[in-house]
Amino acid sequence: MGRITNKMSRDFGINGYNVCTCCLLKKIAPMADQKQQESINPWGLKSWTYLSSLRQHSPLIQCITNFVSMDIMANTLLAAGASPAMVHSILEIPDFTPHTQSVLINVGTLTPDWLPAMKAAAGVANQLGKPWVLDPAAVGASSFRLKACLELIELKPTVIRGNGSEIIALSMASIGSTKGADSLHESKDAVESAKSLAKSSGSIVAISGSVDFVTDGERVVGAHNGVPMMQKITASGCAVTALIAAFVAVDPTHAFEATASAFSVFGLAGEIAMELAKGPASLRMHLIDTLHGLDQDTVLHGVTISNFS
Amino acid sequence: MGRITNKMSRDFGINGYNVCTCCLLKKIAPMADQKQQESINPWGLKSWTYLSSLRQHSPLIQCITNFVSMDIMANTLLAAGASPAMVHSILEIPDFTPHTQSVLINVGTLTPDWLPAMKAAAGVANQLGKPWVLDPAAVGASSFRLKACLELIELKPTVIRGNGSEIIALSMASIGSTKGADSLHESKDAVESAKSLAKSSGSIVAISGSVDFVTDGERVVGAHNGVPMMQKITASGCAVTALIAAFVAVDPTHAFEATASAFSVFGLAGEIAMELAKGPASLRMHLIDTLHGLDQDTVLHGVTISNFS
Amino acid sequence: MGRITNKMSRDFGINGYNVCTCCLLKKIAPMADQKQQESINPWGLKSWTYLSSLRQHSPLIQCITNFVSMDIMANTLLAAGASPAMVHSILEIPDFTPHTQSVLINVGTLTPDWLPAMKAAAGVANQLGKPWVLDPAAVGASSFRLKACLELIELKPTVIRGNGSEIIALSMASIGSTKGADSLHESKDAVESAKSLAKSSGSIVAISGSVDFVTDGERVVGAHNGVPMMQKITASGCAVTALIAAFVAVDPTHAFEATASAFSVFGLAGEIAMELAKGPASLRMHLIDTLHGLDQDTVLHGVTISNFS
Repeated sequence: MGRITNKMSRDFGINGYNVCTCCLLKKIAPMADQKQQESINPWGLKSWTYLSSLRQHSPLIQCITNFVSMDIMANTLLAAGASPAMVHSILEIPDFTPHTQSVLINVGTLTPDWLPAMKAAAGVANQLGKPWVLDPAAVGASSFRLKACLELIELKPTVIRGNGSEIIALSMASIGSTKGADSLHESKDAVESAKSLAKSSGSIVAISGSVDFVTDGERVVGAHNGVPMMQKITASGCAVTALIAAFVAVDPTHAFEATASAFSVFGLAGEIAMELAKGPASLRMHLIDTLHGLDQDTVLHGVTISNFS
Repeated sequence: MGRITNKMSRDFGINGYNVCTCCLLKKIAPMADQKQQESINPWGLKSWTYLSSLRQHSPLIQCITNFVSMDIMANTLLAAGASPAMVHSILEIPDFTPHTQSVLINVGTLTPDWLPAMKAAAGVANQLGKPWVLDPAAVGASSFRLKACLELIELKPTVIRGNGSEIIALSMASIGSTKGADSLHESKDAVESAKSLAKSSGSIVAISGSVDFVTDGERVVGAHNGVPMMQKITASGCAVTALIAAFVAVDPTHAFEATASAFSVFGLAGEIAMELAKGPASLRMHLIDTLHGLDQDTVLHGVTISNFS
Repeated sequence: MGRITNKMSRDFGINGYNVCTCCLLKKIAPMADQKQQESINPWGLKSWTYLSSLRQHSPLIQCITNFVSMDIMANTLLAAGASPAMVHSILEIPDFTPHTQSVLINVGTLTPDWLPAMKAAAGVANQLGKPWVLDPAAVGASSFRLKACLELIELKPTVIRGNGSEIIALSMASIGSTKGADSLHESKDAVESAKSLAKSSGSIVAISGSVDFVTDGERVVGAHNGVPMMQKITASGCAVTALIAAFVAVDPTHAFEATASAFSVFGLAGEIAMELAKGPASLRMHLIDTLHGLDQDTVLHGVTISNFS
């Protein structure tokens, strides 16, 4: 199938920037015979489209993020093909943010002096029609953090990505349901909260966990790729949110699909890395290496996303 | 012995949270025959008890630390089984610190705006009877840093962990005896300073070096595990202080034992990692991998701690 | 040749601190026969002199740098033999900076509150005749950052190291020609800008890229070591600037030679690491491992630096 879809790529330009992936299967279908049609994994195709477009166009992603995640986040984005920029001074937002393709905001080590720049960057993104993604890291840790996240949600993030506890805390607007950066809830237990949050905010809401869920308030898909040990890598959740920001930069009009694809591509890289890993530190290394080298066949066949509701 | 002590674990609940390890040997002794009794390494048993308890209970460790160390510190804590949280805004201390099991404070990249949150977190820990651990990183670098550390010591840290130069600087309350983050003194040259500091502060004082020493002002033990190349890994000292905070969280009433055990477990992971390492970067990776996978037999037989005075 | 130059090292003390390397070849020439003379790589010899001197004396390098780079920068310096210290509080400059051998200033995540300490450290370095090195990371991102860099250049950095876009932006004193931290220009396209900047500033100007160029405004050399994938390692440029600061600390009176040598040693470590790497994350690990273990023969034969003008 690799060879065939390689040809499909050429014929239908699926490596293009902001190419809508939705109609690709319809175009591909008449070319393939019955058996081939059945074996096409539509989410694999979408995911590969995003990843190859990311590599081709290398969009500039502005990250205003926590100190713990900066190294792995920037390396994840570089390995995936994006161009990360950790720029968080409010003085730079007017000059810099207009040149970016998307903005990532993560409150993991928030202090009050960082919040104005976050809001300013989100504001510029909105004004210019650029996507921006919110990671409400450890939102349940304090009322300060919860308030900050709720204010950021007022600025209409394209996507909100958290773990189960974080999404529940946001949806209920209450603190105490998280244990620092780690989740006390299974991701599936947060699906109803996520749907509710998606409806009230207008954002795509994404929950990471043993299965990663994505919802727009109506549709829900589950991305099944990944391995448990990824939770033992600090800021792996922050890194996948940044990858979501990069995928959304490639196709802002299909943030739902881009988000699910980013989850699965990251998880798939983790699965392959796990075959070589001896523990969480080598898993981290192999994950980034694998993300850099992922090829079409692996993505087409490896991505596992299914409808949940 | 692995099998036997596995049984011991079940029989005597040595995986329990806050289980006192002091009496374990007495309990185990009647079960084992003469030869087995002789071969029991009491510090290995303590260390394993702490590590397995850490894995079981995953205590929440709040880290207010320097920027350089955040990545390796969080990954070390995760690999060891703890749940790290880098939360340093003073606005979050009242909500968050009461939910933690211990607090780690490290002044490695201190600026004046960080100090109030450090003091507030130490204050909450004291109020609630939680342990907290001070890492006076590069305390001799400036009078600002020295003064800050002396003020923090007024807030009665459970443990103070530094290298030889740092402990001497603290004990003499004078600057200039450190070379940035690196030590100019052998750890053994700082033992008398450590004893004096322990007496004046009421803290357990721990010196890292080619041998790691721990003292409560009277007793001194030396933890012999580790390899020299660990000093070529940035923030490995910061990481072991965080591991001390995690071990102390498991058994706050035996901070002396928990500190020595943390030193040896970290050093033992370094020894095993060194067999695979080609240099400091691969040593770091293998160390974290090894820490994650350390098993009972390895800890029981590998930990080497002896009385020094 | 390894054996011979080992002997040369002993005879001529090329491992000494601040030993001028310029006359070494003249001294060596009479010892070697005709064929050996022809095979001597003078830049290899210089580079080895700097590296071995760095290992022997372990100079203290103060780094006021961006958050993203701190981990890799400190680990690079440690692996190379230097003693890094990330100290950026203005309160510590008067006590600490006089004890350092050089200062590195990098504006990668600049906010206004960091600038006074950068200027103070540069000022102390100037006053005491210590070298200091400027990394104008992403200088074209905003007028705030450009203004800050131009002010820092007033304080006469010994070396300025940027990518092509950064050097062009500085030379033209205009923003918009960079894409975040990544370059839009080939390094060779910035050589004229670099010469102009070197003349106006009095600094050595260094451009990293597929070939790394170094100029004092008149002379230009190109350092050819390195592999393209190094650009996929976050903050690898920041790390090489720190290595330049360390090499310049060893021989402040020959900053031109020290800078070119640092480029090539870092690039050479990357070349060797690339043989083992499976992607950018393992490349990073192997690069630091390799830097730590580089031996005389490898440096003497591997360093490739040539005159460009």
